[in-house]
Amino acid sequence: MDNRPIGVFDSGLGGLTAVRELARILPEEDLVYFGDTGRVPYGGRSRDTIIRYARQDVAFLGTFQPKAIVVACGTVSTTALDTLRSEWATPIYGVVEPAARAAARLTQSGKVGLIGTKATIRSGAYERALAALRPGTQVTARSCPLLVPLVENGRYQPGDIVAETVVAEYLAPLKDAGVDTLMLGCTHYPLLKPLISAFMGPQVALVDVGEQCAQWVAGQLAGQGLRAGRDRPGRHRFFVSDDSGDFAALASAFLGEDVGDEVAEIDITVY
Amino acid sequence: MDNRPIGVFDSGLGGLTAVRELARILPEEDLVYFGDTGRVPYGGRSRDTIIRYARQDVAFLGTFQPKAIVVACGTVSTTALDTLRSEWATPIYGVVEPAARAAARLTQSGKVGLIGTKATIRSGAYERALAALRPGTQVTARSCPLLVPLVENGRYQPGDIVAETVVAEYLAPLKDAGVDTLMLGCTHYPLLKPLISAFMGPQVALVDVGEQCAQWVAGQLAGQGLRAGRDRPGRHRFFVSDDSGDFAALASAFLGEDVGDEVAEIDITVY
Repeated sequence: MDNRPIGVFDSGLGGLTAVRELARILPEEDLVYFGDTGRVPYGGRSRDTIIRYARQDVAFLGTFQPKAIVVACGTVSTTALDTLRSEWATPIYGVVEPAARAAARLTQSGKVGLIGTKATIRSGAYERALAALRPGTQVTARSCPLLVPLVENGRYQPGDIVAETVVAEYLAPLKDAGVDTLMLGCTHYPLLKPLISAFMGPQVALVDVGEQCAQWVAGQLAGQGLRAGRDRPGRHRFFVSDDSGDFAALASAFLGEDVGDEVAEIDITVY
Repeated sequence: MDNRPIGVFDSGLGGLTAVRELARILPEEDLVYFGDTGRVPYGGRSRDTIIRYARQDVAFLGTFQPKAIVVACGTVSTTALDTLRSEWATPIYGVVEPAARAAARLTQSGKVGLIGTKATIRSGAYERALAALRPGTQVTARSCPLLVPLVENGRYQPGDIVAETVVAEYLAPLKDAGVDTLMLGCTHYPLLKPLISAFMGPQVALVDVGEQCAQWVAGQLAGQGLRAGRDRPGRHRFFVSDDSGDFAALASAFLGEDVGDEVAEIDITVY
Protein backbone atom coordinates (compact mmCIF):
# COMPACT_ATOMS: atom_id res chain seq x y z
CA MET A 1 0.00 0.00 0.00
CA ASP A 2 1.44 3.33 -1.02
CA ASN A 3 -0.41 6.63 -0.80
CA ARG A 4 2.13 8.74 -2.71
CA PRO A 5 0.74 10.34 -5.88
CA ILE A 6 1.23 9.23 -9.45
CA GLY A 7 2.90 11.89 -11.61
CA VAL A 8 1.80 12.28 -15.24
CA PHE A 9 3.13 14.65 -17.87
CA ASP A 10 2.72 15.63 -21.49
CA SER A 11 3.69 18.53 -23.72
CA GLY A 12 0.16 19.90 -23.48
CA LEU A 13 -3.39 18.62 -23.26
CA GLY A 14 -2.91 15.20 -24.78
CA GLY A 15 -1.79 13.44 -21.63
CA LEU A 16 -5.22 14.05 -20.17
CA THR A 17 -6.32 11.01 -22.18
CA ALA A 18 -4.14 8.99 -19.82
CA VAL A 19 -5.32 10.92 -16.74
CA ARG A 20 -8.94 10.22 -17.62
CA GLU A 21 -8.25 6.51 -17.84
CA LEU A 22 -6.14 6.48 -14.66
CA ALA A 23 -8.88 8.33 -12.79
CA ARG A 24 -11.46 5.83 -14.06
CA ILE A 25 -9.63 2.67 -13.11
CA LEU A 26 -7.73 4.01 -10.06
CA PRO A 27 -10.22 6.44 -8.49
CA GLU A 28 -8.50 6.36 -5.10
CA GLU A 29 -5.10 7.50 -6.43
CA ASP A 30 -3.78 11.04 -6.09
CA LEU A 31 -2.67 12.32 -9.51
CA VAL A 32 -0.34 15.21 -10.29
CA TYR A 33 -0.37 16.31 -13.92
CA PHE A 34 2.06 18.61 -15.67
CA GLY A 35 1.26 19.96 -19.16
CA ASP A 36 4.11 21.93 -20.72
CA THR A 37 1.74 24.35 -22.42
CA GLY A 38 4.39 27.06 -22.60
CA ARG A 39 6.52 24.90 -24.93
CA VAL A 40 3.97 22.67 -26.68
CA PRO A 41 4.32 21.05 -29.22
CA TYR A 42 7.32 18.76 -28.67
CA GLY A 43 6.96 16.47 -31.67
CA GLY A 44 8.76 18.59 -34.26
CA ARG A 45 11.71 19.48 -32.06
CA SER A 46 15.13 17.86 -32.03
CA ARG A 47 16.06 14.88 -29.87
CA ASP A 48 18.32 16.98 -27.63
CA THR A 49 15.64 19.57 -27.00
CA ILE A 50 13.01 16.92 -26.26
CA ILE A 51 15.35 15.27 -23.75
CA ARG A 52 16.13 18.63 -22.11
CA TYR A 53 12.44 19.48 -21.76
CA ALA A 54 11.57 15.99 -20.53
CA ARG A 55 14.26 16.13 -17.83
CA GLN A 56 12.71 19.32 -16.49
CA ASP A 57 9.21 17.83 -16.60
CA VAL A 58 10.31 14.80 -14.57
CA ALA A 59 12.30 16.95 -12.14
CA PHE A 60 9.19 19.04 -11.47
CA LEU A 61 7.01 15.96 -10.85
CA GLY A 62 9.82 14.57 -8.70
CA THR A 63 9.19 17.34 -6.17
CA PHE A 64 5.90 15.57 -5.28
CA GLN A 65 7.74 12.35 -4.32
CA PRO A 66 5.62 10.28 -6.69
CA LYS A 67 5.52 6.51 -6.52
CA ALA A 68 5.48 6.38 -10.32
CA ILE A 69 5.78 8.75 -13.26
CA VAL A 70 3.74 8.27 -16.41
CA VAL A 71 5.16 9.76 -19.60
CA ALA A 72 1.80 10.42 -21.25
CA CYS A 73 3.54 11.85 -24.30
CA GLY A 74 4.33 9.76 -27.33
CA THR A 75 7.24 11.98 -28.33
CA VAL A 76 9.00 11.78 -24.95
CA SER A 77 8.21 8.07 -24.57
CA THR A 78 9.91 7.26 -27.86
CA THR A 79 12.78 9.72 -27.61
CA ALA A 80 13.79 10.24 -23.98
CA LEU A 81 12.50 7.32 -21.89
CA ASP A 82 15.79 5.42 -21.57
CA THR A 83 17.57 8.62 -20.57
CA LEU A 84 14.97 9.45 -17.94
CA ARG A 85 14.99 5.92 -16.51
CA SER A 86 18.76 5.96 -16.21
CA GLU A 87 18.57 9.14 -14.13
CA TRP A 88 15.71 8.37 -11.74
CA ALA A 89 15.01 5.57 -9.27
CA THR A 90 11.26 6.24 -9.46
CA PRO A 91 9.55 3.85 -11.91
CA ILE A 92 8.87 5.72 -15.16
CA TYR A 93 6.29 4.31 -17.56
CA GLY A 94 6.01 5.28 -21.21
CA VAL A 95 3.32 4.60 -23.78
CA VAL A 96 5.27 2.44 -26.24
CA GLU A 97 5.43 -0.93 -24.52
CA PRO A 98 1.76 -1.12 -23.49
CA ALA A 99 0.60 0.08 -26.91
CA ALA A 100 2.81 -2.37 -28.76
CA ARG A 101 1.48 -5.20 -26.58
CA ALA A 102 -2.09 -4.19 -27.40
CA ALA A 103 -1.35 -3.99 -31.12
CA ALA A 104 0.40 -7.36 -31.13
CA ARG A 105 -2.65 -8.85 -29.42
CA LEU A 106 -5.20 -7.18 -31.69
CA THR A 107 -3.75 -7.62 -35.16
CA GLN A 108 -4.89 -10.63 -37.16
CA SER A 109 -3.10 -9.86 -40.42
CA GLY A 110 0.15 -8.70 -38.85
CA LYS A 111 -0.25 -5.39 -40.71
CA VAL A 112 -0.15 -2.60 -38.16
CA GLY A 113 -0.33 1.14 -38.78
CA LEU A 114 1.37 3.78 -36.68
CA ILE A 115 0.83 7.53 -36.62
CA GLY A 116 2.79 9.94 -34.44
CA THR A 117 4.82 13.09 -34.36
CA LYS A 118 7.98 13.52 -36.42
CA ALA A 119 10.13 12.65 -33.41
CA THR A 120 8.11 9.51 -32.65
CA ILE A 121 8.30 8.19 -36.18
CA ARG A 122 12.01 9.08 -36.42
CA SER A 123 12.73 7.07 -33.26
CA GLY A 124 11.55 3.69 -34.61
CA ALA A 125 10.58 2.76 -31.03
CA TYR A 126 7.21 1.16 -31.83
CA GLU A 127 8.71 -0.90 -34.63
CA ARG A 128 11.40 -2.27 -32.29
CA ALA A 129 8.86 -3.12 -29.60
CA LEU A 130 6.58 -4.91 -32.09
CA ALA A 131 9.47 -6.81 -33.66
CA ALA A 132 10.30 -8.20 -30.21
CA LEU A 133 6.71 -8.99 -29.25
CA ARG A 134 5.45 -10.32 -32.58
CA PRO A 135 8.23 -11.01 -35.08
CA GLY A 136 7.21 -10.44 -38.68
CA THR A 137 4.72 -7.67 -37.94
CA GLN A 138 4.65 -5.19 -40.82
CA VAL A 139 4.46 -1.65 -39.50
CA THR A 140 3.40 1.19 -41.81
CA ALA A 141 4.33 4.42 -40.08
CA ARG A 142 3.42 8.00 -40.87
CA SER A 143 4.33 11.23 -39.11
CA CYS A 144 1.42 13.65 -38.74
CA PRO A 145 2.88 17.02 -37.67
CA LEU A 146 -0.37 18.96 -38.03
CA LEU A 147 -2.53 16.80 -35.77
CA VAL A 148 -1.24 18.20 -32.46
CA PRO A 149 -1.81 21.83 -33.53
CA LEU A 150 -5.30 20.86 -34.69
CA VAL A 151 -6.18 19.19 -31.39
CA GLU A 152 -4.59 21.94 -29.26
CA ASN A 153 -6.79 24.39 -31.20
CA GLY A 154 -9.91 22.33 -30.57
CA ARG A 155 -10.20 21.25 -34.21
CA TYR A 156 -11.08 17.57 -33.89
CA GLN A 157 -14.85 17.35 -34.31
CA PRO A 158 -16.40 15.28 -37.11
CA GLY A 159 -17.56 17.73 -39.75
CA ASP A 160 -14.49 19.95 -39.30
CA ILE A 161 -13.45 20.08 -42.95
CA VAL A 162 -9.84 20.98 -42.16
CA ALA A 163 -9.40 18.16 -39.67
CA GLU A 164 -11.08 15.73 -42.06
CA THR A 165 -8.83 16.81 -44.94
CA VAL A 166 -5.67 16.45 -42.87
CA VAL A 167 -6.70 13.06 -41.44
CA ALA A 168 -7.56 11.74 -44.92
CA GLU A 169 -4.20 12.85 -46.29
CA TYR A 170 -2.17 11.33 -43.46
CA LEU A 171 -4.08 8.06 -43.25
CA ALA A 172 -4.53 7.24 -46.94
CA PRO A 173 -1.22 5.30 -47.21
CA LEU A 174 -2.10 3.29 -44.09
CA LYS A 175 -5.52 2.44 -45.46
CA ASP A 176 -3.91 1.45 -48.77
CA ALA A 177 -1.46 -0.78 -46.88
CA GLY A 178 -4.44 -2.71 -45.49
CA VAL A 179 -3.59 -2.37 -41.81
CA ASP A 180 -6.13 -3.99 -39.45
CA THR A 181 -4.79 -2.21 -36.35
CA LEU A 182 -3.77 1.43 -36.02
CA MET A 183 -1.66 2.72 -33.14
CA LEU A 184 -2.50 6.32 -32.26
CA GLY A 185 1.07 6.99 -31.18
CA CYS A 186 0.45 10.38 -29.59
CA THR A 187 -1.82 11.09 -26.65
CA HIS A 188 -3.44 13.97 -28.52
CA TYR A 189 -4.86 11.71 -31.19
CA PRO A 190 -7.66 9.97 -29.26
CA LEU A 191 -9.64 13.20 -29.55
CA LEU A 192 -9.64 12.56 -33.29
CA LYS A 193 -10.89 8.96 -32.88
CA PRO A 194 -14.33 9.52 -34.43
CA LEU A 195 -12.72 11.14 -37.50
CA ILE A 196 -9.98 8.53 -37.76
CA SER A 197 -12.41 5.67 -37.31
CA ALA A 198 -14.76 7.10 -39.94
CA PHE A 199 -11.89 7.26 -42.43
CA MET A 200 -10.26 3.90 -41.68
CA GLY A 201 -13.52 1.96 -41.32
CA PRO A 202 -14.92 -0.05 -38.41
CA GLN A 203 -12.80 -3.12 -39.16
CA VAL A 204 -9.60 -1.31 -38.13
CA ALA A 205 -8.86 -1.50 -34.39
CA LEU A 206 -7.56 1.75 -32.89
CA VAL A 207 -4.98 1.55 -30.10
CA ASP A 208 -5.21 4.52 -27.71
CA VAL A 209 -1.69 4.72 -26.28
CA GLY A 210 -2.66 6.80 -23.24
CA GLU A 211 -5.42 4.38 -22.28
CA GLN A 212 -3.20 1.34 -22.74
CA CYS A 213 -0.49 2.98 -20.68
CA ALA A 214 -2.89 3.80 -17.85
CA GLN A 215 -4.09 0.19 -17.74
CA TRP A 216 -0.52 -1.05 -17.76
CA VAL A 217 0.46 1.25 -14.90
CA ALA A 218 -2.56 0.13 -12.87
CA GLY A 219 -1.52 -3.50 -13.35
CA GLN A 220 2.07 -2.77 -12.39
CA LEU A 221 1.09 -0.92 -9.21
CA ALA A 222 -1.30 -3.68 -8.18
CA GLY A 223 1.31 -6.35 -8.88
CA GLN A 224 3.85 -4.57 -6.71
CA GLY A 225 1.43 -3.81 -3.87
CA LEU A 226 1.75 -0.09 -4.53
CA ARG A 227 -1.93 0.83 -4.89
CA ALA A 228 -3.25 3.55 -2.62
CA GLY A 229 -5.28 2.45 0.37
CA ARG A 230 -7.76 5.09 1.47
CA ASP A 231 -11.49 5.63 1.61
CA ARG A 232 -11.70 8.95 -0.21
CA PRO A 233 -11.40 9.72 -3.91
CA GLY A 234 -7.90 10.70 -5.00
CA ARG A 235 -7.00 14.34 -5.44
CA HIS A 236 -6.20 15.48 -8.97
CA ARG A 237 -3.85 18.45 -9.34
CA PHE A 238 -2.80 20.07 -12.60
CA PHE A 239 0.19 22.26 -13.38
CA VAL A 240 0.98 24.07 -16.62
CA SER A 241 3.82 26.28 -17.88
CA ASP A 242 1.58 28.88 -19.51
CA ASP A 243 -1.51 30.78 -18.41
CA SER A 244 -3.77 28.23 -16.78
CA GLY A 245 -7.11 29.72 -17.88
CA ASP A 246 -7.48 28.06 -21.27
CA PHE A 247 -6.15 24.81 -19.93
CA ALA A 248 -8.64 24.71 -17.07
CA ALA A 249 -11.58 25.12 -19.44
CA LEU A 250 -10.36 22.50 -21.89
CA ALA A 251 -9.27 20.08 -19.19
CA SER A 252 -12.59 20.38 -17.37
CA ALA A 253 -14.47 19.61 -20.56
CA PHE A 254 -12.14 16.79 -21.39
CA LEU A 255 -12.06 15.07 -18.02
CA GLY A 256 -15.68 15.71 -17.10
CA GLU A 257 -14.66 17.23 -13.78
CA ASP A 258 -14.15 20.87 -12.82
CA VAL A 259 -10.39 21.28 -12.47
CA GLY A 260 -10.42 25.07 -12.22
CA ASP A 261 -9.37 25.28 -8.57
CA GLU A 262 -6.71 22.65 -9.00
CA VAL A 263 -4.73 24.23 -11.86
CA ALA A 264 -1.61 26.33 -11.24
CA GLU A 265 1.03 27.84 -13.50
CA ILE A 266 4.71 27.15 -12.81
CA ASP A 267 8.06 28.13 -14.33
CA ILE A 268 9.36 24.85 -15.71
CA THR A 269 12.77 26.25 -16.67
CA VAL A 270 13.91 26.36 -13.03
CA TYR A 271 13.76 22.54 -12.70
CA MET B 1 27.74 56.08 -39.68
CA ASP B 2 27.41 53.10 -37.40
CA ASN B 3 28.83 49.66 -38.13
CA ARG B 4 27.13 47.83 -35.27
CA PRO B 5 24.80 45.04 -36.39
CA ILE B 6 21.02 45.08 -36.60
CA GLY B 7 19.38 42.44 -34.43
CA VAL B 8 16.25 40.69 -35.68
CA PHE B 9 14.15 38.06 -33.95
CA ASP B 10 11.06 35.96 -34.38
CA SER B 11 9.53 32.88 -32.79
CA GLY B 12 10.75 30.77 -35.69
CA LEU B 13 11.26 31.05 -39.41
CA GLY B 14 8.83 33.85 -40.14
CA GLY B 15 11.15 36.73 -39.34
CA LEU B 16 13.31 35.71 -42.26
CA THR B 17 10.80 37.58 -44.42
CA ALA B 18 12.12 40.73 -42.74
CA VAL B 19 15.75 39.60 -42.99
CA ARG B 20 15.39 39.00 -46.71
CA GLU B 21 14.06 42.51 -47.20
CA LEU B 22 16.69 44.07 -44.91
CA ALA B 23 19.45 42.23 -46.78
CA ARG B 24 18.05 43.45 -50.09
CA ILE B 25 17.79 47.12 -49.23
CA LEU B 26 20.68 47.31 -46.74
CA PRO B 27 23.27 44.92 -48.23
CA GLU B 28 26.14 46.48 -46.28
CA GLU B 29 24.58 45.91 -42.85
CA ASP B 30 25.58 43.12 -40.49
CA LEU B 31 22.50 41.23 -39.38
CA VAL B 32 22.10 38.95 -36.37
CA TYR B 33 18.95 36.83 -36.39
CA PHE B 34 17.47 34.83 -33.55
CA GLY B 35 14.67 32.33 -34.21
CA ASP B 36 13.19 30.78 -31.07
CA THR B 37 12.66 27.42 -32.74
CA GLY B 38 12.73 25.58 -29.41
CA ARG B 39 9.58 27.42 -28.28
CA VAL B 40 7.77 28.25 -31.53
CA PRO B 41 4.88 29.05 -31.93
CA TYR B 42 4.27 32.10 -29.73
CA GLY B 43 0.87 33.17 -31.04
CA GLY B 44 -1.35 30.92 -28.94
CA ARG B 45 0.47 31.57 -25.67
CA SER B 46 -0.56 33.97 -22.92
CA ARG B 47 0.53 37.60 -22.74
CA ASP B 48 2.81 36.95 -19.75
CA THR B 49 4.58 34.06 -21.44
CA ILE B 50 5.03 36.03 -24.67
CA ILE B 51 6.57 38.92 -22.72
CA ARG B 52 8.86 36.55 -20.81
CA TYR B 53 10.08 34.92 -24.01
CA ALA B 54 10.49 38.26 -25.80
CA ARG B 55 12.60 39.66 -22.94
CA GLN B 56 14.99 36.74 -23.31
CA ASP B 57 15.12 37.14 -27.09
CA VAL B 58 16.04 40.83 -26.79
CA ALA B 59 18.55 40.12 -24.02
CA PHE B 60 20.30 37.60 -26.27
CA LEU B 61 20.46 40.03 -29.21
CA GLY B 62 21.62 42.71 -26.79
CA THR B 63 24.87 40.77 -26.30
CA PHE B 64 25.83 41.79 -29.86
CA GLN B 65 25.57 45.52 -29.02
CA PRO B 66 23.13 46.12 -31.87
CA LYS B 67 22.31 49.62 -33.08
CA ALA B 68 18.69 48.56 -33.54
CA ILE B 69 16.49 45.58 -32.79
CA VAL B 70 13.74 44.51 -35.17
CA VAL B 71 10.86 42.56 -33.67
CA ALA B 72 10.08 40.55 -36.80
CA CYS B 73 7.25 38.76 -35.00
CA GLY B 74 3.69 39.96 -35.17
CA THR B 75 2.80 38.39 -31.84
CA VAL B 76 5.63 40.07 -29.91
CA SER B 77 5.15 43.38 -31.75
CA THR B 78 1.52 43.55 -30.68
CA THR B 79 1.89 42.14 -27.20
CA ALA B 80 5.29 43.04 -25.75
CA LEU B 81 6.71 46.01 -27.66
CA ASP B 82 5.93 48.71 -25.08
CA THR B 83 7.41 46.57 -22.33
CA LEU B 84 10.60 45.93 -24.30
CA ARG B 85 11.00 49.59 -25.22
CA SER B 86 10.63 50.64 -21.61
CA GLU B 87 13.47 48.32 -20.64
CA TRP B 88 16.05 49.00 -23.36
CA ALA B 89 17.78 52.13 -24.64
CA THR B 90 18.45 50.47 -28.02
CA PRO B 91 15.80 51.46 -30.58
CA ILE B 92 13.34 48.59 -30.96
CA TYR B 93 11.15 48.45 -34.07
CA GLY B 94 7.99 46.38 -34.36
CA VAL B 95 5.86 45.50 -37.35
CA VAL B 96 2.60 47.22 -36.40
CA GLU B 97 3.29 50.88 -37.11
CA PRO B 98 4.89 50.41 -40.56
CA ALA B 99 2.18 47.96 -41.62
CA ALA B 100 -0.62 50.22 -40.43
CA ARG B 101 0.92 53.12 -42.37
CA ALA B 102 1.06 51.00 -45.51
CA ALA B 103 -2.54 49.87 -45.09
CA ALA B 104 -3.77 53.42 -44.47
CA ARG B 105 -2.00 54.51 -47.65
CA LEU B 106 -3.24 51.60 -49.77
CA THR B 107 -6.90 51.33 -48.85
CA GLN B 108 -9.41 53.15 -51.03
CA SER B 109 -12.60 51.93 -49.42
CA GLY B 110 -11.40 52.19 -45.84
CA LYS B 111 -12.20 48.52 -45.37
CA VAL B 112 -9.07 46.76 -44.20
CA GLY B 113 -8.64 43.11 -43.29
CA LEU B 114 -6.25 41.78 -40.68
CA ILE B 115 -5.09 38.23 -40.05
CA GLY B 116 -2.75 37.22 -37.25
CA THR B 117 -2.18 34.89 -34.35
CA LYS B 118 -4.60 34.69 -31.43
CA ALA B 119 -2.35 36.98 -29.37
CA THR B 120 -2.10 39.55 -32.17
CA ILE B 121 -5.84 39.74 -32.73
CA ARG B 122 -6.50 39.81 -28.97
CA SER B 123 -4.15 42.82 -28.60
CA GLY B 124 -6.12 45.19 -30.86
CA ALA B 125 -2.80 46.88 -31.73
CA TYR B 126 -3.39 47.21 -35.48
CA GLU B 127 -6.87 48.63 -34.95
CA ARG B 128 -5.49 51.29 -32.59
CA ALA B 129 -2.71 52.24 -35.01
CA LEU B 130 -5.13 52.52 -37.94
CA ALA B 131 -7.64 54.53 -35.93
CA ALA B 132 -4.90 57.07 -35.25
CA LEU B 133 -3.56 57.14 -38.82
CA ARG B 134 -6.84 57.00 -40.72
CA PRO B 135 -9.90 57.61 -38.51
CA GLY B 136 -12.97 55.71 -39.65
CA THR B 137 -11.09 52.76 -41.09
CA GLN B 138 -13.14 49.57 -40.68
CA VAL B 139 -10.92 46.69 -39.66
CA THR B 140 -12.15 43.12 -40.03
CA ALA B 141 -9.82 40.94 -38.01
CA ARG B 142 -9.45 37.18 -37.83
CA SER B 143 -7.10 35.00 -35.83
CA CYS B 144 -5.58 32.14 -37.81
CA PRO B 145 -3.94 29.77 -35.32
CA LEU B 146 -3.19 27.02 -37.83
CA LEU B 147 -1.23 29.12 -40.32
CA VAL B 148 2.05 29.18 -38.36
CA PRO B 149 2.10 25.38 -37.88
CA LEU B 150 1.36 25.01 -41.61
CA VAL B 151 4.22 27.31 -42.64
CA GLU B 152 6.66 25.86 -40.10
CA ASN B 153 5.87 22.44 -41.61
CA GLY B 154 6.51 23.69 -45.14
CA ARG B 155 2.82 23.49 -46.10
CA TYR B 156 2.30 26.71 -48.02
CA GLN B 157 2.51 25.79 -51.70
CA PRO B 158 -0.40 26.43 -54.06
CA GLY B 159 -2.06 23.08 -54.67
CA ASP B 160 -1.59 22.00 -51.05
CA ILE B 161 -5.19 21.04 -50.35
CA VAL B 162 -4.85 21.41 -46.59
CA ALA B 163 -3.32 24.86 -46.79
CA GLU B 164 -5.93 25.91 -49.35
CA THR B 165 -8.78 24.65 -47.17
CA VAL B 166 -7.47 26.45 -44.09
CA VAL B 167 -6.84 29.69 -45.96
CA ALA B 168 -10.33 29.63 -47.50
CA GLU B 169 -11.94 29.06 -44.12
CA TYR B 170 -10.03 31.85 -42.39
CA LEU B 171 -10.35 34.41 -45.17
CA ALA B 172 -13.99 33.90 -46.19
CA PRO B 173 -15.34 36.47 -43.68
CA LEU B 174 -12.77 39.03 -44.82
CA LYS B 175 -13.69 38.48 -48.44
CA ASP B 176 -17.37 38.79 -47.52
CA ALA B 177 -16.60 42.06 -45.71
CA GLY B 178 -15.27 43.47 -48.98
CA VAL B 179 -11.83 44.53 -47.74
CA ASP B 180 -9.57 46.06 -50.40
CA THR B 181 -6.41 45.73 -48.31
CA LEU B 182 -5.32 42.78 -46.19
CA MET B 183 -2.62 43.03 -43.56
CA LEU B 184 -0.69 39.79 -43.16
CA GLY B 185 -0.12 40.46 -39.47
CA CYS B 186 2.40 37.68 -38.87
CA THR B 187 5.77 37.32 -40.53
CA HIS B 188 5.07 33.69 -41.37
CA TYR B 189 2.19 34.57 -43.66
CA PRO B 190 4.06 36.00 -46.67
CA LEU B 191 5.01 32.43 -47.59
CA LEU B 192 1.27 31.87 -48.11
CA LYS B 193 0.94 34.95 -50.35
CA PRO B 194 0.23 33.05 -53.60
CA LEU B 195 -2.52 31.07 -51.88
CA ILE B 196 -3.96 34.10 -50.10
CA SER B 197 -3.87 36.22 -53.23
CA ALA B 198 -5.56 33.48 -55.27
CA PHE B 199 -8.39 33.33 -52.73
CA MET B 200 -8.84 37.07 -52.14
CA GLY B 201 -8.43 38.09 -55.77
CA PRO B 202 -5.97 40.46 -57.45
CA GLN B 203 -7.90 43.59 -56.43
CA VAL B 204 -7.00 43.10 -52.75
CA ALA B 205 -3.64 44.61 -51.76
CA LEU B 206 -1.59 42.45 -49.40
CA VAL B 207 0.54 44.16 -46.76
CA ASP B 208 3.63 42.12 -45.84
CA VAL B 209 4.41 43.31 -42.32
CA GLY B 210 8.02 42.08 -42.31
CA GLU B 211 8.78 43.84 -45.58
CA GLN B 212 7.14 47.08 -44.45
CA CYS B 213 9.04 46.94 -41.19
CA ALA B 214 12.37 46.40 -42.95
CA GLN B 215 11.75 49.43 -45.17
CA TRP B 216 10.75 51.50 -42.17
CA VAL B 217 13.90 50.53 -40.26
CA ALA B 218 16.07 51.37 -43.27
CA GLY B 219 14.48 54.81 -43.43
CA GLN B 220 14.93 55.39 -39.71
CA LEU B 221 18.61 54.41 -39.79
CA ALA B 222 19.28 56.62 -42.80
CA GLY B 223 17.45 59.53 -41.20
CA GLN B 224 19.52 59.23 -38.04
CA GLY B 225 22.83 58.77 -39.84
CA LEU B 226 23.13 55.25 -38.47
CA ARG B 227 23.69 53.34 -41.71
CA ALA B 228 26.81 51.19 -41.92
CA GLY B 229 29.73 52.55 -43.90
CA ARG B 230 31.90 49.82 -45.35
CA ASP B 231 32.83 48.39 -48.71
CA ARG B 232 32.03 44.74 -48.07
CA PRO B 233 28.68 42.99 -47.91
CA GLY B 234 27.26 42.69 -44.40
CA ARG B 235 27.66 39.46 -42.48
CA HIS B 236 24.48 37.55 -41.70
CA ARG B 237 24.49 35.36 -38.62
CA PHE B 238 21.64 33.14 -37.43
CA PHE B 239 20.95 31.69 -34.00
CA VAL B 240 18.21 29.27 -33.00
CA SER B 241 17.09 27.61 -29.77
CA ASP B 242 16.64 24.13 -31.23
CA ASP B 243 18.73 21.91 -33.48
CA SER B 244 20.00 24.16 -36.25
CA GLY B 245 19.96 21.58 -39.06
CA ASP B 246 16.37 21.95 -40.23
CA PHE B 247 16.55 25.70 -39.84
CA ALA B 248 19.68 25.99 -41.96
CA ALA B 249 18.06 24.12 -44.85
CA LEU B 250 14.82 26.08 -44.71
CA ALA B 251 16.56 29.42 -44.18
CA SER B 252 18.96 28.83 -47.05
CA ALA B 253 16.06 28.05 -49.37
CA PHE B 254 14.11 30.99 -48.10
CA LEU B 255 16.84 33.62 -48.23
CA GLY B 256 18.52 32.37 -51.38
CA GLU B 257 21.90 32.24 -49.64
CA ASP B 258 23.66 29.33 -47.97
CA VAL B 259 23.44 30.07 -44.25
CA GLY B 260 24.68 26.65 -43.08
CA ASP B 261 28.00 27.86 -41.66
CA GLU B 262 26.43 30.85 -39.99
CA VAL B 263 23.79 29.05 -37.92
CA ALA B 264 24.36 28.14 -34.27
CA GLU B 265 22.15 26.76 -31.51
CA ILE B 266 21.97 28.58 -28.17
CA ASP B 267 20.20 28.11 -24.84
CA ILE B 268 17.78 31.04 -24.74
CA THR B 269 16.64 30.36 -21.17
CA VAL B 270 19.91 31.67 -19.70
CA TYR B 271 19.22 35.21 -20.97
